[in-house]
Amino acid sequence: MSDRSIDPRYEIALASRILANEGVLDAFGHVTLRHPRDPGRFLLARSRSPQLVEPDDVLEFTLDSEPVRPPSVRLFAERVIHGCIYQARPDVMAVCHHHAPAVLPFCIAGVPIVPVFHLGAAGGETIPFWNQRDEFGDTNLLVVKPEEGHSLARALGAHAAVLMRHHGATVVGADLRELISRSVFMCQNAVYQLQAHLLGKVAQLTPGETRLAGAINALPNVVGRTWEYWSCRLAESGRMPARRTVRAKPPAAGRAAAKGKAGRRKRARS
Amino acid sequence: MSDRSIDPRYEIALASRILANEGVLDAFGHVTLRHPRDPGRFLLARSRSPQLVEPDDVLEFTLDSEPVRPPSVRLFAERVIHGCIYQARPDVMAVCHHHAPAVLPFCIAGVPIVPVFHLGAAGGETIPFWNQRDEFGDTNLLVVKPEEGHSLARALGAHAAVLMRHHGATVVGADLRELISRSVFMCQNAVYQLQAHLLGKVAQLTPGETRLAGAINALPNVVGRTWEYWSCRLAESGRMPARRTVRAKPPAAGRAAAKGKAGRRKRARS
Amino acid sequence: MSDRSIDPRYEIALASRILANEGVLDAFGHVTLRHPRDPGRFLLARSRSPQLVEPDDVLEFTLDSEPVRPPSVRLFAERVIHGCIYQARPDVMAVCHHHAPAVLPFCIAGVPIVPVFHLGAAGGETIPFWNQRDEFGDTNLLVVKPEEGHSLARALGAHAAVLMRHHGATVVGADLRELISRSVFMCQNAVYQLQAHLLGKVAQLTPGETRLAGAINALPNVVGRTWEYWSCRLAESGRMPARRTVRAKPPAAGRAAAKGKAGRRKRARS
Amino acid sequence: MSDRSIDPRYEIALASRILANEGVLDAFGHVTLRHPRDPGRFLLARSRSPQLVEPDDVLEFTLDSEPVRPPSVRLFAERVIHGCIYQARPDVMAVCHHHAPAVLPFCIAGVPIVPVFHLGAAGGETIPFWNQRDEFGDTNLLVVKPEEGHSLARALGAHAAVLMRHHGATVVGADLRELISRSVFMCQNAVYQLQAHLLGKVAQLTPGETRLAGAINALPNVVGRTWEYWSCRLAESGRMPARRTVRAKPPAAGRAAAKGKAGRRKRARS
Repeated sequence: MSDRSIDPRYEIALASRILANEGVLDAFGHVTLRHPRDPGRFLLARSRSPQLVEPDDVLEFTLDSEPVRPPSVRLFAERVIHGCIYQARPDVMAVCHHHAPAVLPFCIAGVPIVPVFHLGAAGGETIPFWNQRDEFGDTNLLVVKPEEGHSLARALGAHAAVLMRHHGATVVGADLRELISRSVFMCQNAVYQLQAHLLGKVAQLTPGETRLAGAINALPNVVGRTWEYWSCRLAESGRMPARRTVRAKPPAAGRAAAKGKAGRRKRARS
Repeated sequence: MSDRSIDPRYEIALASRILANEGVLDAFGHVTLRHPRDPGRFLLARSRSPQLVEPDDVLEFTLDSEPVRPPSVRLFAERVIHGCIYQARPDVMAVCHHHAPAVLPFCIAGVPIVPVFHLGAAGGETIPFWNQRDEFGDTNLLVVKPEEGHSLARALGAHAAVLMRHHGATVVGADLRELISRSVFMCQNAVYQLQAHLLGKVAQLTPGETRLAGAINALPNVVGRTWEYWSCRLAESGRMPARRTVRAKPPAAGRAAAKGKAGRRKRARS
Repeated sequence: MSDRSIDPRYEIALASRILANEGVLDAFGHVTLRHPRDPGRFLLARSRSPQLVEPDDVLEFTLDSEPVRPPSVRLFAERVIHGCIYQARPDVMAVCHHHAPAVLPFCIAGVPIVPVFHLGAAGGETIPFWNQRDEFGDTNLLVVKPEEGHSLARALGAHAAVLMRHHGATVVGADLRELISRSVFMCQNAVYQLQAHLLGKVAQLTPGETRLAGAINALPNVVGRTWEYWSCRLAESGRMPARRTVRAKPPAAGRAAAKGKAGRRKRARS
Repeated sequence: MSDRSIDPRYEIALASRILANEGVLDAFGHVTLRHPRDPGRFLLARSRSPQLVEPDDVLEFTLDSEPVRPPSVRLFAERVIHGCIYQARPDVMAVCHHHAPAVLPFCIAGVPIVPVFHLGAAGGETIPFWNQRDEFGDTNLLVVKPEEGHSLARALGAHAAVLMRHHGATVVGADLRELISRSVFMCQNAVYQLQAHLLGKVAQLTPGETRLAGAINALPNVVGRTWEYWSCRLAESGRMPARRTVRAKPPAAGRAAAKGKAGRRKRARS
């Protein structure tokens, strides 16, 4: 990912689509990347379902979650989730907010997700809970105001993810690949944990196992394998983002829309 | 939806197919729209599985649920569900009756569906129950007689949806898009509620949260996003309804059937 | 189905594939039809997964479950299930034996499937249990000997279906369409019943409701709708059986195999 | 499988892809075969997700799990699972290690999988548990060191499979077809067992039934049927491995990669 030739807008579109294809994201949710050359900015798509994000949909934001250039398209309401976390966590390079079906039951029941299998250790030993109601009373549960974003970032603390009561989760990573692995395996972990609970006993990893197994996803032969696998599954489903031939910086809204429509028409045939 | 150029028959076919594609409808269920220019009529397809409805299948009915023109095709037996609700609820412009797998367990156990996540608030704070047996004794559980339809409409009251014991649900909306969002999110809410129950605790939204979060789906950037997402998923599956080139009013039964066959043949290749 | 021009071998292939496509059948299971012109015979495919059955795979058997002509292909071991039921039940014209994932948990737990929603009434008020072990001690659980088949037929009695302990179910019908509806809805009923059980209460239909709702699937507008729906879903998946152009009676084993391979190659592209 | 013309590298690719297609394998897991002409060696793919394995990816290893030729590609870290089992079990010709979603809840809860339906008997009467922690304390739960592999092989003993605490399962077979059947049916058995548990009672097969039913999958008409079924499903999904036209032994890494990319491109269209 340190390769200068890599197009971060394409990578965000790809990551968004992989997470949609693997059942983490649906109509909602968003993936961001800290700007590779300016740590005081981050990249986020215009308001659009993750499975449909194209590289040209990706815009630049300050860490106050304001667009760098006046936008001609609709923006996500919850972008403070990202800005506030990038402010609080210099080590974080990528953030995903999602409503995955696997984690929602835990967000509703208030039951913590704990590491129950080796790959699930990617979520760390503790995934804290954040309940917007505690600090802000009755809201529509969207994280829109800066103080809401800062509160969520405080709840996340130094952890890899935070569960949001009645809403979903926010996951962070040192890069997009770690973010994707962590998000996918945290969902699998939640599914298995619920079923183990039904069988009568949720035995969790020891802190030592969690620390050691949490590093599996950084092994070169694992990173290469999962990335190839998730990419191939996305290609199989006909949902790869379009490669940009021209590398002009900011997308003209009209052009992006036209391109999106053509891409969709093509995909609809597959 | 206020655009005069929009074809309401096409919109009904599209809505029916989206709800089938998202797992709300199957071989059964129906979507109607109050006639955009005559509030004393509504539009409903001939008896056909929702995933297969074409614009030319859509017929006009009075609020007594009688066809405006003598039909040459089979009609749904349960159309009084729609007529009786349009009579009782002038604010309702669209109605969906379904047997979604997500809600059936609740219809059988007699357990209420309550709002447990922000999008699930689209169903409102209370979804009442209607048990046909209470008023009509042993029936085949279909809602066929006007008095059955009126009884169901009374149980619905001012709510957004009503659960039908041992049968399914009926959902209403101010337009087709609200109807679709509400139907989809109510099903997701039911799935998560059941799983939270298995984890040990179903914590629900407060009345204030329900009211505030219930309005999320009317936000312009949310409506646009979900509509694009569900439409693209439908297009991906090769199930979009055929666009009508000629706008002649009532379909000749023979022509509709021929067209349907051709469409199916094409789709079968995708 | 009384139409003389209908090819019963094609109908069996179609029914087998529909039930596979709807998740009732998998690598195992079989669908038979009593011979339309000779009630002392029945039609069953050679040993092959139901999703792959072609019209030319279908052979003729006596009610002793012996092939009418010396077979050049492998036969199902469990054909006595069909022969013994056709002997015991003159009203039965079609039989399906399956291991559907929906019914297996009930076959293992020994919990009866009871009608819990209107369409589930297609299975009748009581679905009896048969435990091969009761009469035959330790076996491999396959129903292979005539006395095993007769024992199963006795357990079925006058009912619409029988659960087989640790094995699956056998369903009967007055024709293939009733058989398919009953099989599909009985599986849905089982899934909903298990989930209602998890919610805390399995309220079942009254005997009167079961009798009245059990007749829904014979309504002309319902039969037409479900048949179109299941057929279209099969066509969409690219799994329709091949239409036979020549109506020569018994298939040459070689030709059937060659045809099967070609069909598969074509389907693999869709 | 004793046919000399059969290409064992192709068979491994096919087996890996079938098990991925049937939901046993995902990004992880591996299938090996003892070398058909040298019982002191086994065949295993380079580190790659099973669904993507091509015949040219398959390499030769000694029973110490060392590559016979210096590798130019990344290897699986856990190959000692295979080498140690081939050392301990001369009767075993094929091994699969997997993290199937069906077995993980049992690996976490520590609840044994027991035979609950006739096909599930393929896993035998007892499937032992192995907990890496018991002997090795805190690890990352991967089986990497020879002593870990030998410990797992001891836990497997003379059984057909072993559950690995917080990790997955390892299954063995007398050939690839037995391995595939056993792996698939053991997963189905686990799913049904969990659901029967939810219904209130897990009644298991008697030892006699388990022994008799465990032999079903060796019946010629069953082996032929399941193999055709799983192969056709794989072909339908567009995921068959490429047939090798040239039978040159070791793949040039570059060529293999190029081929993989082309194959993927083609598959992405289907």
